[in-house]
Amino acid sequence: MVVSLRLPSLSALFSPAISRRPSSLPRCNHHRVRRPVCSASFSAQSTVSEANGRVDTQTQSSNRVVDRAVTPRSQDFNAWYLDVIEQAELADYGPVRGTMVIRPYGYAIWEAIQDYLNVKFKETGHSNMYFPQFIPYSFIEKEASHVEGFSPELAVVTIGGGKELEEKLVVRPTSETIVNHMFTQWIHSYRDLPLMVNQWANVTRWEMRTKPFVRTLEFLWQEGHTAHATPEEAEKEAIQMIDVYTKFAYEQTAIPVIAGRKSKVETFAGAVRTYTIEAMMGDRKALQAGTSHNLGQNFSRAFQTQFTDESGQRQHVWQTSWAVSTRFVGGIIMTHGDDTGLMLPPKIAPIQVVITPIWKKDDDREGVLNAASSVKEALQTAGIRVKLDDSDQRTPGWKFNFWEMKGVPVRIEIGPRDVSSRTVVICRRDVPGKQGKVFGISMEPSILEAHIKDKLDEIQSSLLEKAKSFRDCNIVDVSSYDELKVAISQGKWARGPWSASDEDELKVKEETGATIRCFPFEQPQDIKTCLMTGNPAEEVAIFAKSY
Amino acid sequence: MVVSLRLPSLSALFSPAISRRPSSLPRCNHHRVRRPVCSASFSAQSTVSEANGRVDTQTQSSNRVVDRAVTPRSQDFNAWYLDVIEQAELADYGPVRGTMVIRPYGYAIWEAIQDYLNVKFKETGHSNMYFPQFIPYSFIEKEASHVEGFSPELAVVTIGGGKELEEKLVVRPTSETIVNHMFTQWIHSYRDLPLMVNQWANVTRWEMRTKPFVRTLEFLWQEGHTAHATPEEAEKEAIQMIDVYTKFAYEQTAIPVIAGRKSKVETFAGAVRTYTIEAMMGDRKALQAGTSHNLGQNFSRAFQTQFTDESGQRQHVWQTSWAVSTRFVGGIIMTHGDDTGLMLPPKIAPIQVVITPIWKKDDDREGVLNAASSVKEALQTAGIRVKLDDSDQRTPGWKFNFWEMKGVPVRIEIGPRDVSSRTVVICRRDVPGKQGKVFGISMEPSILEAHIKDKLDEIQSSLLEKAKSFRDCNIVDVSSYDELKVAISQGKWARGPWSASDEDELKVKEETGATIRCFPFEQPQDIKTCLMTGNPAEEVAIFAKSY
Repeated sequence: MVVSLRLPSLSALFSPAISRRPSSLPRCNHHRVRRPVCSASFSAQSTVSEANGRVDTQTQSSNRVVDRAVTPRSQDFNAWYLDVIEQAELADYGPVRGTMVIRPYGYAIWEAIQDYLNVKFKETGHSNMYFPQFIPYSFIEKEASHVEGFSPELAVVTIGGGKELEEKLVVRPTSETIVNHMFTQWIHSYRDLPLMVNQWANVTRWEMRTKPFVRTLEFLWQEGHTAHATPEEAEKEAIQMIDVYTKFAYEQTAIPVIAGRKSKVETFAGAVRTYTIEAMMGDRKALQAGTSHNLGQNFSRAFQTQFTDESGQRQHVWQTSWAVSTRFVGGIIMTHGDDTGLMLPPKIAPIQVVITPIWKKDDDREGVLNAASSVKEALQTAGIRVKLDDSDQRTPGWKFNFWEMKGVPVRIEIGPRDVSSRTVVICRRDVPGKQGKVFGISMEPSILEAHIKDKLDEIQSSLLEKAKSFRDCNIVDVSSYDELKVAISQGKWARGPWSASDEDELKVKEETGATIRCFPFEQPQDIKTCLMTGNPAEEVAIFAKSY
Repeated sequence: MVVSLRLPSLSALFSPAISRRPSSLPRCNHHRVRRPVCSASFSAQSTVSEANGRVDTQTQSSNRVVDRAVTPRSQDFNAWYLDVIEQAELADYGPVRGTMVIRPYGYAIWEAIQDYLNVKFKETGHSNMYFPQFIPYSFIEKEASHVEGFSPELAVVTIGGGKELEEKLVVRPTSETIVNHMFTQWIHSYRDLPLMVNQWANVTRWEMRTKPFVRTLEFLWQEGHTAHATPEEAEKEAIQMIDVYTKFAYEQTAIPVIAGRKSKVETFAGAVRTYTIEAMMGDRKALQAGTSHNLGQNFSRAFQTQFTDESGQRQHVWQTSWAVSTRFVGGIIMTHGDDTGLMLPPKIAPIQVVITPIWKKDDDREGVLNAASSVKEALQTAGIRVKLDDSDQRTPGWKFNFWEMKGVPVRIEIGPRDVSSRTVVICRRDVPGKQGKVFGISMEPSILEAHIKDKLDEIQSSLLEKAKSFRDCNIVDVSSYDELKVAISQGKWARGPWSASDEDELKVKEETGATIRCFPFEQPQDIKTCLMTGNPAEEVAIFAKSY
């Protein structure tokens, strides 16, 4: 269902301080007739119909003035998500079913993720490198649970250079196998350990149900791979990296993930233990946002990745692998967005501040634009990512809506009166209407810069706090299976003591649709009995429906 | 043939100022028995035999003390190249024929290339994004010369998720086709132009003869893609980007490339005009190090990529594409390396300065290491990429050789006497022996930092100048086909007036092995007659054998 965009910023135009209502405000005259909002899965989209569905605005004037529509989040979460991705120009559908084109604005969010993590990986002793993406089919078969986990999802190259290949090649779904093949050539003695590397790469998994960013046939990620001399070191590394991800999620993306250990059923194919960070999306579904695996010796035994220890004995190495992907962008959208569109945490926003100049009379234009340019320069120099939207073709109201929909954390408005008083108006994306506005902030660079930086910090913290309370309001402590079922049926997460069998876990999944997301690191201290069996339970688990 | 490493630095140990000859200098006791140096092509290597050929140093003590051998460049260029890649740990062979694993030290060079170019691309108005790597086979067939050029080199996915695919998918060899498919959905009017994007990605070309970095089955690159409203804008963009590459080659990699236009025969499959930068390697073969294509309307006509111009008319867009790849790393190795190994230009060296502490008596150890650490801290703070090699297991002589072979531009030596006098010894990688050494440089951070920065600048310029004179000594001006044949048979580049036919160009290739590398932008002003036909010729072309 197509509904028009909510326009919270318009109320602000009636602010007593400055009258800045545009004389006419076509809600959107540049957007093309959009295809019907479709809540069907991403994979159901056909590119041909998409392309044909477009009508050019320049030649079809009768279609010019149409609403730009983002389905309100409160009305249909999935439709809202797909709308935001399209309207904010984050991604588009590739020509092959389930593939995604990441557009510049979406890619810039991924670059912010890369920039932060890349530094952290290097600080923790890892080097970047690159492994080929084609893996001999026989490699995948070497580790028993790995082949079972991945073989249904493989893309296979059978023709190269016009000829049928003797051995089929798998397009990497993950690189543990080829990494081990190479590690056997680089690791000889304990002196070669630990070996700690990472790669930024594309991976392919032939998913049947796809959704942009969350699950696509090809996606971008980083995968860390390490080898150690002892199981303790490998365990420490796996924990260290899930901690890096947790800190990243909280501090950069304002997503209050819950870190913990996966159940055996949910452990990565080939791992001994999988650690995870689980995020609660706006629809209260869980998103697995990053994982770190203690691989034990599973791959090193399969590939004979051995080293000579200090006493001259040959031993298999102990390994880890860990990854986050472009799925994180989906997590950011679904954590913070609102009915109006995207809402980006300042630290990872490609544009942190948008400046909207406002004038009616031509006489005012130059003064306003000059002031807006100096403000832009000053903020840019201070290291703030700022955009001046000085386009003549759009009204200020249109621009307010557009940049709100794109999730820019702060807007600066500058009109003729502001120029006279050498001040600006500052508006927060996360606080709609008057409440989010501050008038009369000095244009003087040092004052403005300090004010904006404070504002960005405030927004960053505020988004995290909001997400935390939302999360905490939606986790229910349960002590019986009945309570669990009620919580899940209400769309919430259920947290309760668990020591039951894998079969019981699968039964919960079948009957409620929820899985164990993790045994969280933070555990209550009191004695527990398993919610399913009544037997003693050492830990609580969190159950939820997930993406 | 295996020969031992030349040891230029050893002579320096007899320097009159400080006696620092290590008591014993096993030339290499940590390197494994290496496989025989093989000048056969990269593709001939078998991984299995590589892995089996290794003998672990810790368990096989009889094999411990073996020479680390880099075939001298002067003796066998190709063997030297492969040795350097292996010994300097730049890359290794992947398990699939013709694929390459880029190891951390090699990848760090690629990261330095990325860091520089990424900034330049953004400064010139391009945004990064990401296109899927799977392209429907039918796309490749749409542009006639494109399919002719690329179809023999395609890797094709025929199985996905366990099922035979209805339409085969090509693993991208380049992205013009999928880019145009997407551009049709984003470009509607002249207001959407220019559209200027770039992606950093892997690409696959099923090459028969491969060589690490220079030509591999899968490689990493960036590919820029732009669409414009006029042919003039597209031409300007194509030229702008070859200029960016040229500046990068000269200023960052110290490679004095020759920029120019490709002949029709050598133009990219699907382009109207291809601009190129051609680099002369140490064996005087040419390496095409980067290209920028004016695609005209070839792809926009094939894919119907149209826009509505200001007068309301529908027009096909004018396009460009441009790329540099991990091949550039090969170019750096083959331009600057010498018999001893790699020689890296400071601006792209992962390690610019290596500090080697020297002590004999245990009493001296702590003082020397403390001084070395403070020097390291000071230089690191000044933004210099510095490594302190404080390993106890290697002699100073071993370390000198190792880091020279790895191409680190500057070495700092610190011994007990230096600690007393609060000075260091500085050695240039590019000037062997005493001539490249300076004694008694103060450890005082500001003095040392300034000295090192000067030194790095000097080395950077010096490498460029050396490469320039080498290049200029090896380009011969020719005015007849006979002269051309002589020049080529001497391994040189031939530059001469050319206006002959494509057939004549192919005849030159057949008879001499040389191709037209480019019509250089810098042209002599005098009147010319074609070296082949005697007809008037407007331009000189450069002929050379190439990689």
